Order: sequence, then structure tokens, then C-alpha cells
Amino acid sequence: MSGVAAGDKYVVGVDYGTLSGRALVVRVRDGAELGTAVHEYRNAVISSALPDGGTPLPPDWALQDPEDYRDVLRHAVPAAVAAAGIDPGDVVGIGTDFTACTVLPTLADGTPLCEVPELRQRPHSWVKLWKHHAAQPHADRINALAHERGEPWIGRYGGKISAEWQFAKGLQILEEDPEVYHRAERFIEAADWIIWQLCGVETRNVCTAGYKGIHQDGSYPSAEYLTALNPGFGDFVAKLDGPLMPLAARAGGLTARAAAWTGLPEGIAVAVGNVDAHVTAAAAQALDPGRLVAIMGTSTCHVVNGTDLAEVAGMCGVVDGGISSGAWGYEAGQSGVGDIFGWFVKHAAPAGVDSHERLTELAAAQPVGAHGLVALDWWNGNRSLLVNHDLSGLIVGLTLATRPEDVYRALLEATAYGTRMIIEAFVEAGVPVDDLVIAGGLTSNELLMQIYADVTNRPLGIIGSAQGPALGSAIHAAVAAGAHPSIHHASQVMGRISAAVYQPDPDRVRAYDALYAEYRALHDHFGRGANDVMLRLRAIRNAAVESATSQQEVFA
Amino acid sequence: MSGVAAGDKYVVGVDYGTLSGRALVVRVRDGAELGTAVHEYRNAVISSALPDGGTPLPPDWALQDPEDYRDVLRHAVPAAVAAAGIDPGDVVGIGTDFTACTVLPTLADGTPLCEVPELRQRPHSWVKLWKHHAAQPHADRINALAHERGEPWIGRYGGKISAEWQFAKGLQILEEDPEVYHRAERFIEAADWIIWQLCGVETRNVCTAGYKGIHQDGSYPSAEYLTALNPGFGDFVAKLDGPLMPLAARAGGLTARAAAWTGLPEGIAVAVGNVDAHVTAAAAQALDPGRLVAIMGTSTCHVVNGTDLAEVAGMCGVVDGGISSGAWGYEAGQSGVGDIFGWFVKHAAPAGVDSHERLTELAAAQPVGAHGLVALDWWNGNRSLLVNHDLSGLIVGLTLATRPEDVYRALLEATAYGTRMIIEAFVEAGVPVDDLVIAGGLTSNELLMQIYADVTNRPLGIIGSAQGPALGSAIHAAVAAGAHPSIHHASQVMGRISAAVYQPDPDRVRAYDALYAEYRALHDHFGRGANDVMLRLRAIRNAAVESATSQQEVFA
Repeated sequence: MSGVAAGDKYVVGVDYGTLSGRALVVRVRDGAELGTAVHEYRNAVISSALPDGGTPLPPDWALQDPEDYRDVLRHAVPAAVAAAGIDPGDVVGIGTDFTACTVLPTLADGTPLCEVPELRQRPHSWVKLWKHHAAQPHADRINALAHERGEPWIGRYGGKISAEWQFAKGLQILEEDPEVYHRAERFIEAADWIIWQLCGVETRNVCTAGYKGIHQDGSYPSAEYLTALNPGFGDFVAKLDGPLMPLAARAGGLTARAAAWTGLPEGIAVAVGNVDAHVTAAAAQALDPGRLVAIMGTSTCHVVNGTDLAEVAGMCGVVDGGISSGAWGYEAGQSGVGDIFGWFVKHAAPAGVDSHERLTELAAAQPVGAHGLVALDWWNGNRSLLVNHDLSGLIVGLTLATRPEDVYRALLEATAYGTRMIIEAFVEAGVPVDDLVIAGGLTSNELLMQIYADVTNRPLGIIGSAQGPALGSAIHAAVAAGAHPSIHHASQVMGRISAAVYQPDPDRVRAYDALYAEYRALHDHFGRGANDVMLRLRAIRNAAVESATSQQEVFA
Repeated sequence: MSGVAAGDKYVVGVDYGTLSGRALVVRVRDGAELGTAVHEYRNAVISSALPDGGTPLPPDWALQDPEDYRDVLRHAVPAAVAAAGIDPGDVVGIGTDFTACTVLPTLADGTPLCEVPELRQRPHSWVKLWKHHAAQPHADRINALAHERGEPWIGRYGGKISAEWQFAKGLQILEEDPEVYHRAERFIEAADWIIWQLCGVETRNVCTAGYKGIHQDGSYPSAEYLTALNPGFGDFVAKLDGPLMPLAARAGGLTARAAAWTGLPEGIAVAVGNVDAHVTAAAAQALDPGRLVAIMGTSTCHVVNGTDLAEVAGMCGVVDGGISSGAWGYEAGQSGVGDIFGWFVKHAAPAGVDSHERLTELAAAQPVGAHGLVALDWWNGNRSLLVNHDLSGLIVGLTLATRPEDVYRALLEATAYGTRMIIEAFVEAGVPVDDLVIAGGLTSNELLMQIYADVTNRPLGIIGSAQGPALGSAIHAAVAAGAHPSIHHASQVMGRISAAVYQPDPDRVRAYDALYAEYRALHDHFGRGANDVMLRLRAIRNAAVESATSQQEVFA
């Protein structure tokens, strides 16, 4: 980390992940990262029972404890400032980003319902984490009714609202615990709630309102629509509503309480809430239309700005100003990427080659197509373009000569084909994608990066920071503090990218075109209804496991 | 092994496998196995160069040395007799079985051309082993012309003559080494050649002539057809022709020379040649129509007798008396079975579960369908019903929760589905299959056996001998010696089966019906032209590997 000079000003970015929160101290004039610290959530992901021996939870639930979020402010922020060796008095702003849709019910003053003593053992009073998947039946009804009524907003989400998003989770609360629903005076993204904690003022940001809250063209879904879903759901928008603020705006000043938690000066700028993937675009200097950012870790999130509105079938969503003001922000995703490679190393690689390093080394030695394999990368379902979590993985071309590194490489390639499907859907709908910037934990795998360049036939840059989201949050804080005139300017000054590190090779591009054509044919055959074997196998599996479990219970 | 009593008579069965020959001494009155011995071939499979630093061989070649076959008579037979503790003077007959189509060119007196000094360095003068696969282009022309001319025999082979069989191998010799072709006065199955060595008389058996030599309804393919293939090929049948003898007939008496090799009495009965799979039916008491024998090892061969002639698309062949006189013998096969399970253990199972025992134990604990997977068992191509060695394996249904034992079980099941496809093809063509008898190395896996019973919905018996082919050969020797009046009678007295050891379970049968329907849909989609992705991936693979190899050569 660089040295500290007199007169410099700093901002703090806080990245709220699934298991921990990270604070990063960044210099305003050049984006230098001076100090960082991580705080692990005490209650992590709450999926089997409420904390401290509390109420058991049904399958597919995933909750969090809002106190863990405050603890990040109390511990990670001061630790990062200390590590940076700066005077906290030189910090001019704080920005945050969050997983989404992670959402909670609160009282009118922002008190989480799970902190209201008589509601503490009620699961629906807690924060629902993004990967809480128990609201699928509610999402199914939301989608069916939207199409039935021809709701105009459904096309903005590729035709499907996810079970992870606000309306599905809200409807689940209403129908499973009406009392908690009625006690909830506000229903708010954790991304916005943490801002409320920092500056004492409730704000809402255009990003989560748009991507997760179905806010389009100035309004939420109509009361008529919501009442048709459930007569008691008509008031749901009242729990969400309020003025929306653009990204990088100043939500307010740091309160005395939050200043005491963080050790930062009272009154400094607090930027409005933001989302981990979207905030990374600023850190990667990727706010211009045509430059797609792929944040690649266990899963991949793609964000790209476009100048025009287009409806892209199967994407996650398009939101005006959803990545940065003045552009349409597009989001898509792949639900399994690094997770699949990890699965292979752990569960399908024999002794002696069971490491990413060894498999990559062996896989890198082979020419394109030499393994004779194509895979569909749906080990964790398909988020875009098919939007179906019950799809599953496929490998074709296996022979007695197939070696572990062959399958490993085929899996790397399959995720690249999945990204190319998304890129082509954007391009076909009129959203240009000229080059890629990769962020996240997988950027260190050079073979994987080169495969992505070759498969997509696009130059591929790498973000210059290992803490992309936290840096992005810090950049937004600098803008909110008035230290830079715009997010574009701040991104140019403080963001970091190694552009076009990987160039597509024409021979390999041609070779991959043939394999991608096979991927695409399999993708459409198994993903678009010609053969729903994956869905039937999932149903057979669930019935078999359930029947075995219930028999064990009977005979136990 | 049982004791030896005065007055008992014995027969010797010799099973010629791919890497060794086994002799077995069997008591005529009850089939008791008294002693056995194995002799490994010195030159094993000759695939890279002729022995002792000789001529290099092209890819896909597989030759053998006929002297290795004689050595089995010299070493294994006396050793087995010694192990049995019997008086060799009490042996009344010897029978053999062989891999097929394993075939060699000889002089008129049976001298292999590879033993003619001036031809010894000519690869085409040696024995072509069954798995010599370099005659595929010749087989392709044989098939194309047969269909073009509407040759009546092609339907007896499911519509395709294999590259492994006599006419493809013979045509390859003619076109690649005409001198060897012309020096070959006889062209003979090793199964018949070894009989010639034993009794000094050239004989031909109906089994190999029918299944491997296209002998149907009393004749071989016409000279017109052969001349149309190649003007020089019209005389090929003259190299094969001669009276055909039924299985279990006496080919002749043991010569003095062969008596000296084996230590057996001169003049005892020598049974006509036979094939390892077909001869096993007698050992398994499975000669009655409707009882299908599956010899399951690295691959599986299915044989079943039928009372009527039927042409079954995709089967290997139907031959009058091909398994036993008086019935139509049907043959089908799966080119990868135990090989696939072995591949999985070696190349796809992580440390700690990389054994058949552990994987089977874990797989056995799960209910049908709980793994959510279906596989196509084509790791080594498909022999029946699709007859295409360029098809490859497929797995569908993979998720992050998939464990090694799940895939392992799916592979066991896939081979069972493959067997069910064959059974259904037989039944639909009018060849009944009422129950199964399993022989071969895989019979010890109880989970696999129960899966076959459940998937095929048929009772499943197990052969009562670990040396099925050698016992079958001994039974044929007993009939040739006149010790039993017919092969059916001898099979009842000397063969051994544990019938219906595994019964299908109605619940599992129902569960497997649903999964088999998925297998069948995938089988037809990928195997019958709807999506030839496997063939294209094979071509891409071969081109990529070849290009990489030639570049290495250029830059080496």
C-alpha cells in the first residue's frame, strides 16, 4: 500500500458479502488502497434454526442477523483505518454495497422486526438473505399473473421475476405470518437499511428498487395487480415507497452514533446504497456502454450499460440508472461457475490431480477440441437466459480415453459458452458488448481468462483491484462527498483496469465457434422444452429422497 | 474341487482369451471342475510392431502369434490335468473356444503365413485379433455395396457387417498386401485353426462361419458381389469354403503330435471349434429359447436361442445352429460395460472412494432415482443396436450435490438400460426373452445384478461356474466324445446355474421404467441422427489431436 501524505483525503468503502463484511480505505486523488479489514458475521447464514437455539426453519430458508451488519461498522471500519495508518479525520465519506435482494421488515424508525422482543422467535421477522429460496411458489404466481394481465414491467426482467426478489419474499411473509407482515411498517433492502443506520435517514436507491423491487418508469406494480395476487397485498408498495435517489448521491451525513461505531468524523458524506456487482463497474472503469463487467466467483454476475432501453429475453433486469446515472443498466448472471470447478476438484478428480493448479496445468497443454467434450454448465441451474433453477449439468463425448483434465477444461469452456449466450442475447436485442472486464476471484486463472477471450471473440481486461466491490463503494463515497464531480470522473481517477490483457486468437476462435454451436444446440434442446428430462429427473430425485426420508421416519 | 473316483471319465475344455488360454479338467458324469491352469501368451496383443523388433504397425492394428496358441496346449493342458490329480488316460475328449473374429491366412496344410520365413516381417501374414480395427474403411464399403445391391444376408446382421469380421479383414489384406493375400491358400478362424492343430484335419464350424463369415442359407456372399467390391476379391470364398460342421460334433481324433503336446491320449475326440460367448450358453444351462445369456466383463455379449428366424435391426447376427443345433442363435453386444466402471474408478473417483467396493456400498444405500442422473453407456461406442463405434458417453442431471457414488450407480444403470434396449429389440422382432442368466466377471456385484433384474423386469440367474467358457468347451468335448447323447443333455448334466437368484422388485421396476424412458429418448436422439453431436465431437477431437501431433513433428 502507498504512503500517506499530508493534505490527502480518504474515503471508506464497505462491501457486505454473504458471510462477512470488508472495509477498505481508499485515497480520493488516485484510488490507492491503503488499508483493509474483514469482519465475519457471527450468525453467518441462518438456515436451520434461529440463533441461540431458536425456532427451527423449513428447507430452503436463508436468514441473517442485522446486528452482524452493524458489527462490520464497529470492527472492520476502525481496523481498516488503523491498517491504513491515516488520520480518521481525513476521511470525507463512506459508501457501501450489499448482496441483493437481501431484505428485511422494520418499524417506521428502521428497527428490524427481529429486534422487537415479542417477534424475535418469528422467522419472518428476520432478514431474508438473497439466497432464501422458499418463496418459489409465490414467484410462480407473481409471474403467471403478470403474464396473464400483460403487466408492462415483466418484459424488463426477461419475462420472469425471481423468487429471490422483494415481491416474492414479501408475499411469502403475508401468507405465512400475516401478523409480522402487518407489523412491518417498512420493508427495505439491507443495502438501504445500512445507510439508514449510518445517516439516520431512510433512503432508497434506484438500483435495488429497479432490479429487485420492480420499480419501472416511475412506479411500482399497481394495487390492482397486487390485490389480485392476494387481497391483503395491496398495501405492499406503501411499505417500500419513498423518493428514490440516484447512485453516488449523498444520502445524508454520518450520525453521532455511527461516528462512534466507526471512529469516522460525524457528518461526513454517506453515499446511497448499492449492490456488490453493480458497484464494481465503477471500480473497473467499465461505465461506458459496450464494456461488460463479469464478476466471476462461485457464480458470475454480468453488468453492462446501454444507451437505449431494450428488452432482452431471459436477462435478470434492465434499470434506468441501475449501474450509473444516465444509462440503462443491464444485469444477467450464471448461477454456477467457480462452484462447478470446485465441485469437480472435490467430487470428481482422482488422487494426484485433485487441485485446480494441477488440472489447469494439464488442461492448458491441449489444443481446442482435443478432449472431444461439450458440457452444459447448469450444475446450479440457469439464471440467464433460461431462468430455471431446476435445470442441471450435462457432459457429452465421454470415452474410455477421457482424462480428468479433459472434463475440467470442458467445464471451464462450458461457463464461457454460457457467457457467450448472454452476450449474444444482449447484442441481438441491440445492447452492444464490445469488450469484457473480469473481476472477482477467478481472474487469476490465466487459462480460464484466455478461454473466455477466445470463446467470446472479444478482448478481455482484468480489474486492477482484488477488492472490486469495496473500491467501487469507496468511489461512490468520493462522489457523494463532492470530491469528484461525477461517478464517471471518479471511476477514471480512482478505478483500475488492465485493459485487453487477453486477446482472442483467430484459430482458437474458429475452433471454439464449432464447439459453441454444439453447446447452443444442446442448450436449446434441454433448456427450451424439446426434452425436459432435467426437470423430470429433478422431480424423480425429489420424490425418491422424500419418500426415503418419510419411510425412515416411519420405521425409525 | 471334488475327489477322483475309479471309473470316472473326464474332458478338457480350453478357453482361448485375448491375453491367455485356460485349460479346465471336468468330470463327464456331473461337470465337476477338478483342475485348471492358465498360460499367458508370450506375445500377447501385438499392436505397435511385430515381435522381436520387427516391422512397425499402423494405428488400430491388433495381431497375435499362433505359436502362443500351441503353447497353451503344451503348458496349460498338462498343468490342469496335474492339478486335477487324474489319470490322463481317463480323458475322453477335448474342446476349445476362442475369441472371434480372430482370423489368419495359412498354406493349404494349415501353416500360418507368419511362419513362412520370407513372410514373417509382413504384418498381414499374422493372426488378426478380434479387436484389429484397421479395416473400418473396408467394412464401410462392404456395407454400402450390400445395401446398394440388396444382398439378402445383410439383414441377418442387423444391417451392418463389422470391421472386425472375416470379409473386412480379408479385403484389407488383398488391398494392402496382395502378395500375402495370394499366398494365403486358406483363410481361417483361429477357432478352427486350433482344431486343425489338434486333430490334423481342417474343419469349419457353423458358428464362426455364420456370425463372422457371412455364411447364410448354405452359402457365402456371391462372387459377383465380391468382384464388385474389388475385382481381385472374387476368389475369397474359395479360401474359406469347405463343409461346415455343427457345434459339438467330433472334428477328428487327437493326433500323436497334439497328444505329445498335451499329455492326453492319442485319438480321443476333438470337438469342432466354438466361440467363447456362445459356448458359455451350454455351461449356463441356457440353451432353451427364451433364456438369454449375458457374459458380462469389460464388455458384454448376449446370446439367446430362438425357435424362429427373425431379423432384428442392430443386432450382431442370427445363425442357424449358431449356439446349438436345431435353433436360431441370436447374438448382440455392448462394447463397454466393466470397462466403463473401471474408467470411473480410475479417472473420475476422488481419493477415499476410488474402489468398486466402496462406491458400490455407497450407491447401494440410495433409492432408485435419488441421484437424479441418467447416462448413455457409450464410452466405448455402441455395438448393438446402433452399431457405431464413434458414439460416446453422456451424463445428464449433474448438480453441485452430485456425489461420486451417484455417478457410479448411474453408470451401472446405464449398462442395464442398454441391455434392456437389446432385449426389447429381440422381443419386438418376435424373439422371446423370458429370463436372463449372467456369466462373467461382473456376477459378483450384487447391486449390479439386482439393478439388471429390476431394469429388465426379469428374473436373473447366475452361472454356477467361474470358468463358464472352459466348462462350456468341456461340455462340447463330452458330446463330441459320445459321452452324452446331445448338447442339451450334456448341458443339463454338466452345466451349472443358480436360476432366478435375483427377482425384480415391483416398486423398483416401476421407478426404473420412468428412468428407462429417459434413457431411451436420449438414446434415440443422440444415436439415430437427430443430433449427431457425438460424431462431430469425435471428428473435431481427431482433427485437433492429429494437427497437434503433426505440428509437434514439424517443430520437434
